[in-house]
Amino acid sequence: MTETTREQQVLERIDRARQRKARVREERITMAHGAGGKATQTLIEAVFLDAFRNPLLEPLEDGAVFGAGGARLAFTTDSYVVSPLFFPGGDIGDLAVNGTVNDLSVCGARPLYLSAGFVLEEGFPVEDLRRISASMARAAAAAEVSIVTGDTKVVQRGKADGCYVTTAGVGLLERDARLGVAHARPGDAVLVSGPVGEHGVTIMLARGELDIEADVTSDTAPLNGLVAALQAAVGEEVRCLRDATRGGVATILNEIARAAGVAVVVEEDAVPVRPPVRGACELLGIDPLYVACEGRMVAVVDGDAAESALAALRGHPLGAGAAIVGRVRDDPPGLVLLKTAFGGTRIIDVLVGDPLPRIC
Amino acid sequence: MTETTREQQVLERIDRARQRKARVREERITMAHGAGGKATQTLIEAVFLDAFRNPLLEPLEDGAVFGAGGARLAFTTDSYVVSPLFFPGGDIGDLAVNGTVNDLSVCGARPLYLSAGFVLEEGFPVEDLRRISASMARAAAAAEVSIVTGDTKVVQRGKADGCYVTTAGVGLLERDARLGVAHARPGDAVLVSGPVGEHGVTIMLARGELDIEADVTSDTAPLNGLVAALQAAVGEEVRCLRDATRGGVATILNEIARAAGVAVVVEEDAVPVRPPVRGACELLGIDPLYVACEGRMVAVVDGDAAESALAALRGHPLGAGAAIVGRVRDDPPGLVLLKTAFGGTRIIDVLVGDPLPRIC
Repeated sequence: MTETTREQQVLERIDRARQRKARVREERITMAHGAGGKATQTLIEAVFLDAFRNPLLEPLEDGAVFGAGGARLAFTTDSYVVSPLFFPGGDIGDLAVNGTVNDLSVCGARPLYLSAGFVLEEGFPVEDLRRISASMARAAAAAEVSIVTGDTKVVQRGKADGCYVTTAGVGLLERDARLGVAHARPGDAVLVSGPVGEHGVTIMLARGELDIEADVTSDTAPLNGLVAALQAAVGEEVRCLRDATRGGVATILNEIARAAGVAVVVEEDAVPVRPPVRGACELLGIDPLYVACEGRMVAVVDGDAAESALAALRGHPLGAGAAIVGRVRDDPPGLVLLKTAFGGTRIIDVLVGDPLPRIC
Repeated sequence: MTETTREQQVLERIDRARQRKARVREERITMAHGAGGKATQTLIEAVFLDAFRNPLLEPLEDGAVFGAGGARLAFTTDSYVVSPLFFPGGDIGDLAVNGTVNDLSVCGARPLYLSAGFVLEEGFPVEDLRRISASMARAAAAAEVSIVTGDTKVVQRGKADGCYVTTAGVGLLERDARLGVAHARPGDAVLVSGPVGEHGVTIMLARGELDIEADVTSDTAPLNGLVAALQAAVGEEVRCLRDATRGGVATILNEIARAAGVAVVVEEDAVPVRPPVRGACELLGIDPLYVACEGRMVAVVDGDAAESALAALRGHPLGAGAAIVGRVRDDPPGLVLLKTAFGGTRIIDVLVGDPLPRIC
């Protein structure tokens, strides 16, 4: 079967998928439903979107954007169930703060206020909760947001795993940028803000179940400063921003391709991956493009603004390792293609299954 | 020991407590830390407030109120871990929507938008998730709010209890009412919007662990319409509103007494309790004043406006059983006193321990 025939078949499959209503085939929730890939998308569309359907939820972006009392606001939430709770480079606390800060930032909003809901397991050490809270406070200070409201629930032993944290956040849209994965157009450039996969690999290794040692720490970081730098340089030329968490860069690129009806062509050589991450991924048999980051974003900008955008990202400490990794094309619509180092082309689908459970 | 000596001692204890910094004595989280009573307050003050300290969080109201882009907003969150997930009168879904709607309403805000974060246990039936989502959608429609953003995480079997939901909400303050438990003044009247304790008793009985049968259903309901009716009638005279969830009416009254430095004197006879709830509470050995409601609020209003406030509440379907239950006095400050049906007076302290775990 030639590459073209294969692509044709995939295209037809995507068309069929679009025409039928999303449907969850499984009778019970599986780990894959939480992995951020195909099963998560189906669950969201078939259950939550189907029940809650409204114009603000429908775009399924990282946050909702709306007007209230004359202000234009962004609003988002994320639950955190990462295991272990503490890992090289961070913990569930700064992860939960940075994650919500980043979801607001990629909506184009300035993050202002966060909420924090805790589900604690009976017997959880109070000292660990103090460490997590201190880490949240530091992360909030670094991102210039305040944690202004919260809630605490306790469940019996064996009904949680120490501590789960759900943060929500409110941000202010100060410029009229309308960002969204559907806005990508042929000719646009695709950038990533730094080396990919560090957070996911760190978590896998921190569990100590694998006999792999590597000098990797989580990339968890607040992206609002980096987004502000990018907007200041090429604000009008930015089509969409997404932080590459569960499902990794590959899943984001697929969302862009699907939503905008475009092709995304990525040069494998251009994707920054630090050697220890690449090594660990090879041993684990995972593609780093599918591994979660918690302080990296994908930016799609007008092709002509690519170099200015790259310079703006590289001028910020969190974007020092930024790279232009690909281009948006018109054909084949809905697909992400990877040009490999050996001159071949393969299709990069959304994540299937859950190779890395509970990484955030 | 006379009543006066006892009160004097309690007062001195409260003064000492205020002077020393809140400190969690336990090394590990206990169920009481999630019960909404004394242990929860200590945990919040000693761990979360200590770490996150900022002027918006400090009042420890049900939500934070702030300005953003010219709008005056309220923002709140609550995590739900109720067991069982489905119970007479509701389920975790409408509970989570109503709870956040109510927290915004008692801040004086009109609830607008909600977020929903799900933590699902591997193996949870998809059909149950559909029921919960449908129930959330109905509750949102009834309260005229939209669920505009969300997140789903999945944890392994034995790391949760089916489904936990965290909602957050954004509301708009359309009038300049500054509500807060610290605003209660001597001479004010204390009202409850209906019979108390129905939700908590329903949950206890729904677990089927007790050999008690009673015709009780949860009072879960959105309070925004009722609050609007009260504000339309006596808006300027309302000092504070609180929905009486964990810890019940008794805990709310203690928060008022403590924050405002006043006494709250409650007439036991005046507190509406439906007979099956009273009966179940007697068998369980719990005071209904400590049992959670999920669709009732405590309102403190200027004494002269008490009858108008009562009429406004009673004029709304959710306030048909409203009652004036007590008065605010200046002495003894910080205490809640119950005048019993037999002419005695006893002190009603905040909830200690957790007689009713995971009721919301």
